[in-house]
Amino acid sequence: MKTIFIVLFSILISLPSFAQDRTNDLMPVPQSLKTTGTRCRILKDFTIGVTGNPGNRVFKEATRSLRRLDNRVGLFFKQGFLTIKDNNTSANLLIEVKRPAELKLYENESYRLFSNAQQVKITAETDLGAIRGLETLQQLLSVDNEGYYFPGVEISDAPRFSWRGMMIDITLHWMPMDVIERTLDCMASVKMNVLHLHLTEDQMFGIESKVFPRLHEVGSDGNYYTQEDIRRIIAFADQRGIRVVPEFDIPGHCTSWLKAYPELASVKRDYELQRYFGVFDPTLDVTKDYTYEFLDKLFTEMTHLFPDEYFHIGGDENTGKDWAANPDIKAYMDKKGMKTYCELETEFMQRLLPIITKNGKKMMGWDEIFRPGVPHDIMIESWRGEKSLVQAAQQGYTGILSAGYYIDLIQPTDYHYLVDPIPANTVLTPEQQKFIVGGEATMWTEHTSIETVDSRMWPRSAAIAERFWSAQSVRNVDDMYRRLDQISLLLEGLGSTHIRNKGVLMRRLANSYDTKALEVLVDVIEPLKVYARNEKGKMYNVFSPYTKIADAATPDQKVAREFRKNVSNYCSTKNAAIGKDITEHLQLWKNNHAGFMQLVKKSPILNEAVGLSENLAKISETGLKAMGYLKNHSTPPAAWKAASLNITKKAKEQGGRCDLQVVTAIEELVNAASK
Amino acid sequence: MKTIFIVLFSILISLPSFAQDRTNDLMPVPQSLKTTGTRCRILKDFTIGVTGNPGNRVFKEATRSLRRLDNRVGLFFKQGFLTIKDNNTSANLLIEVKRPAELKLYENESYRLFSNAQQVKITAETDLGAIRGLETLQQLLSVDNEGYYFPGVEISDAPRFSWRGMMIDITLHWMPMDVIERTLDCMASVKMNVLHLHLTEDQMFGIESKVFPRLHEVGSDGNYYTQEDIRRIIAFADQRGIRVVPEFDIPGHCTSWLKAYPELASVKRDYELQRYFGVFDPTLDVTKDYTYEFLDKLFTEMTHLFPDEYFHIGGDENTGKDWAANPDIKAYMDKKGMKTYCELETEFMQRLLPIITKNGKKMMGWDEIFRPGVPHDIMIESWRGEKSLVQAAQQGYTGILSAGYYIDLIQPTDYHYLVDPIPANTVLTPEQQKFIVGGEATMWTEHTSIETVDSRMWPRSAAIAERFWSAQSVRNVDDMYRRLDQISLLLEGLGSTHIRNKGVLMRRLANSYDTKALEVLVDVIEPLKVYARNEKGKMYNVFSPYTKIADAATPDQKVAREFRKNVSNYCSTKNAAIGKDITEHLQLWKNNHAGFMQLVKKSPILNEAVGLSENLAKISETGLKAMGYLKNHSTPPAAWKAASLNITKKAKEQGGRCDLQVVTAIEELVNAASK
Repeated sequence: MKTIFIVLFSILISLPSFAQDRTNDLMPVPQSLKTTGTRCRILKDFTIGVTGNPGNRVFKEATRSLRRLDNRVGLFFKQGFLTIKDNNTSANLLIEVKRPAELKLYENESYRLFSNAQQVKITAETDLGAIRGLETLQQLLSVDNEGYYFPGVEISDAPRFSWRGMMIDITLHWMPMDVIERTLDCMASVKMNVLHLHLTEDQMFGIESKVFPRLHEVGSDGNYYTQEDIRRIIAFADQRGIRVVPEFDIPGHCTSWLKAYPELASVKRDYELQRYFGVFDPTLDVTKDYTYEFLDKLFTEMTHLFPDEYFHIGGDENTGKDWAANPDIKAYMDKKGMKTYCELETEFMQRLLPIITKNGKKMMGWDEIFRPGVPHDIMIESWRGEKSLVQAAQQGYTGILSAGYYIDLIQPTDYHYLVDPIPANTVLTPEQQKFIVGGEATMWTEHTSIETVDSRMWPRSAAIAERFWSAQSVRNVDDMYRRLDQISLLLEGLGSTHIRNKGVLMRRLANSYDTKALEVLVDVIEPLKVYARNEKGKMYNVFSPYTKIADAATPDQKVAREFRKNVSNYCSTKNAAIGKDITEHLQLWKNNHAGFMQLVKKSPILNEAVGLSENLAKISETGLKAMGYLKNHSTPPAAWKAASLNITKKAKEQGGRCDLQVVTAIEELVNAASK
Repeated sequence: MKTIFIVLFSILISLPSFAQDRTNDLMPVPQSLKTTGTRCRILKDFTIGVTGNPGNRVFKEATRSLRRLDNRVGLFFKQGFLTIKDNNTSANLLIEVKRPAELKLYENESYRLFSNAQQVKITAETDLGAIRGLETLQQLLSVDNEGYYFPGVEISDAPRFSWRGMMIDITLHWMPMDVIERTLDCMASVKMNVLHLHLTEDQMFGIESKVFPRLHEVGSDGNYYTQEDIRRIIAFADQRGIRVVPEFDIPGHCTSWLKAYPELASVKRDYELQRYFGVFDPTLDVTKDYTYEFLDKLFTEMTHLFPDEYFHIGGDENTGKDWAANPDIKAYMDKKGMKTYCELETEFMQRLLPIITKNGKKMMGWDEIFRPGVPHDIMIESWRGEKSLVQAAQQGYTGILSAGYYIDLIQPTDYHYLVDPIPANTVLTPEQQKFIVGGEATMWTEHTSIETVDSRMWPRSAAIAERFWSAQSVRNVDDMYRRLDQISLLLEGLGSTHIRNKGVLMRRLANSYDTKALEVLVDVIEPLKVYARNEKGKMYNVFSPYTKIADAATPDQKVAREFRKNVSNYCSTKNAAIGKDITEHLQLWKNNHAGFMQLVKKSPILNEAVGLSENLAKISETGLKAMGYLKNHSTPPAAWKAASLNITKKAKEQGGRCDLQVVTAIEELVNAASK
């Protein structure tokens, strides 16, 4: 009994201490931060003042910031909706802004945040800078015995890259307005500043066109953003200092266009919306003048709808097959002396460019558009690898990196975190480096529903946001994970469903409230990574159920990650407390299988995970034996190692499109015990 | 050790058994249901066929139903989007519809659902009936050792009342589109069929007017439904067989109108949007012709936007003070010989009526509009009590009941459940009863945020929906609660956040993932009921934090409810197993206080709940002593009872605008022990 109390007590004192200072918890890490030791108390009479030449953005964001703060401290602040009259220079939080920003690439987003016992002061050249400072302040909210406070700091901060984007694909699965709005709130909180909307695909034309209404009427199942929706998204993003870049993906990925306007197609076919995922042949006929007249009208409409200076035309994954299949196109290419479809694609880009530029926009595309002969005034988004980005920069093309930031592929946060648009060992000269202006996390939604999309985006994207904002040298993975746990809760508070919806999916899966056995299993599995989940590319389509165990499972499972780390530590240190923790986990997992089998009987949808649960029990039993040998310094029987590694090998098999995340750790234990 | 295993085993076998037949779990209970004992298996090749003369509604709803089913069984059904081609009469589910319905009061919503081992068949006069049948089918999904099935039934069903409404107020706190859409999904699942939108208030004019744009531009903080939004809501509701009735609340509750168009006001004032809640004096000047010209233009616009035959003009809570304060209005009344403001209000209704009727609508209002002299062709919504509804029916006025269904007031489900629009002991004749056409749950949003609104609506409203649909005799409270637990999960699956957001609020409150001590407390508290929460009516305003413990707490807390029931049982039966359960809860609550105090240090927002937690510990200690006396059949010392009741009396004090829900149960134990 006494031991239990001691254990409990040590758990209690290991909780964050009563002076819970958040200075070291910021994400992204600022460029420069000094602590001064003071504490600026947050009391019921807390107010914000704004001076200088601020735009409307600051008042709206200051109001939102005030409410967010009050929602966390619960003090019933008196100040309501901030206006230009709220210019009290001795307010608890004073914001000084020199000018409203233009929302465009390279705009000044720097700010200084200074706090002492009396006041927090945010000063910035532009309102964008002030907004970034307000987000830093939200993260600084600290607690001690006397209550809430802002710690004394001197922060001087500015982004490393000017393009810090999140691409969201709303076509492979429809994502309604509320998903976009909460994504924007979360992006703003980690200082991302570009929302790239992937609006059209083989599966759907996801935006209203008044010029060619069949595009959204015939080219969708009824889900699309109206132009009013788009204006609302843009205004919502603008307030948060976020640009909105639309993508109309051509000349491939356009089945939905061709269903609506078959006269644009390279091949005559009965076009229906594509229900599966992948790369398909339907392609615009880029040899017809009609196609350019169509694109001219459509893009003139759309460039007027989207104020941003960049306009993304996709350009990826054209198979060239439909061009090859059309004798007229073949003849056109022969006449022009074109040997490959790539040459025709380059000509297409050249003919498309004036349509974009005459509307005052710069053309942007995936890295397929980077071909000999393309004009320099474009933006290249590197998705196939960092190589194309480097080559582009060397040749004086502006570009951003998305390769390495494909968050839909369920890779761990540290993998994305350590990818750098300009790594320390870059071959680029400082002048060339300037052509690389940032990067984008890309959220493709093949295997994502409205319920799961947030858990695929957050919290991992916060670490990517830090990569784009903070200094190159900020690369400590352990420290990133420590801070990520806290940011994760802030993101949830802003509306992200990445934590809460896990419970929803599990309660549905469990066909009952009692999800315990399922939780234990889901804590140590992850959906199959990269492109393995969709078996042969044909297992899933747009109306498949995304409500199964692979959907409840999330990337970068913390329990599994920490277990692996503990095992590594234990194998080198033999630390008894860590050993105890490992043993307790192994016992939990070993004993979980019986409960899980009870649950499966009530909920057959979980049948597909029985193998996972059984394997988890078996490897845990193996792990417990290994721990026994290690603790007793005894030698296992001769055949034990091979037999054990057979068990772990089998446990690497997938189940329910997931795999166990603790197998290698148990192999490590087996190997250590067999030494 | 043995005892523990026995306890565990008994918990396991008390879980739903392996043949988890849902026939008895339906909510609302159908008018007639027979079970036939067959099981219709749901396999991968499950399909739906539709025959007869169905409208588009059935295809869309059948498709949605198919996806919902697949999301629960996870079988990857092949059938995608249903069309008129899906008319296979041997499909696993066959839907036969005679005609598309008109979406209006008294329309036929009846259906029959027949299932045997081969097929489920839903037959209905109208597509509305078919849709109601599809919802019943969703609730019938059952599980046995072989997998999923629909149990064999013969159901014949139709609603008791034709008006089964949910009013949602989007003005006291703004409720965006996604709240409305998930509310409609939940309403449909329990067969509610009217969404009443309370669109205008002192605090906000929540809908776009193209005729008088200052109404939404100046009369709101930027949150309002555009007309496109409204059309989207109507289409979304129509697909689910739900009517949409708009409310424009006049002549009182109109500060937002007067800020935008002060010329409508009875009193000259600097009108600003009202930030507090309650009843205020600003009132339309109903003596000016201009007011009627204005209303004519506005309501002509709005009646064209909303297709429903009913148009709600509010009419509640006019204080009459602003009319009294205006000498011109006084003179007008004198001239017409009007003694009270009620007479002027009656005249207003009479002058308003032709504006509504000439646009093809029927006027509807709160029960204030039921005054001598008002024409018969109106709909009265009784909110002040059942009396006005009875009187109206006696005088031949059509009406619905909302008194007793104010779900914002945090009353327990059984309270609402037992209120009946036509109770068994009604004084009305059968002919008079026909004038009462149903009722509405009303969700006022004073003390509700986007995060908490669902937990105020669901699952309690499902029991109200049953009251409106099922037979008068369906009144077993225990059985209602049993079924409500299951419906609650179905509602969550449809998007309601009533379960998931509790975790969000608690994690924010706890300032961390570790919410255990908070959970234990929140399980036994509820927000102060009826109008007690808002101290003196002035504690809260529209921008107050609704993120505190009273917001995490939900109505009708199950743990507390079951504890109270157990205590009652125990006091009469002295059943040892129940006694053990009671003792375990008391111990948990007694020991929780230390952990809660640790949490409060990390999260001062919880300070306001320290008294609750301390009182819970104290009364639990008292309860444990009482249990000791009861178990040992021993007599407590003379002074013990009085001292104990002092402790429980003190524990009735509020904390954080909540009160403990187990105090009376512990008093019951004290009294029983002192006998």
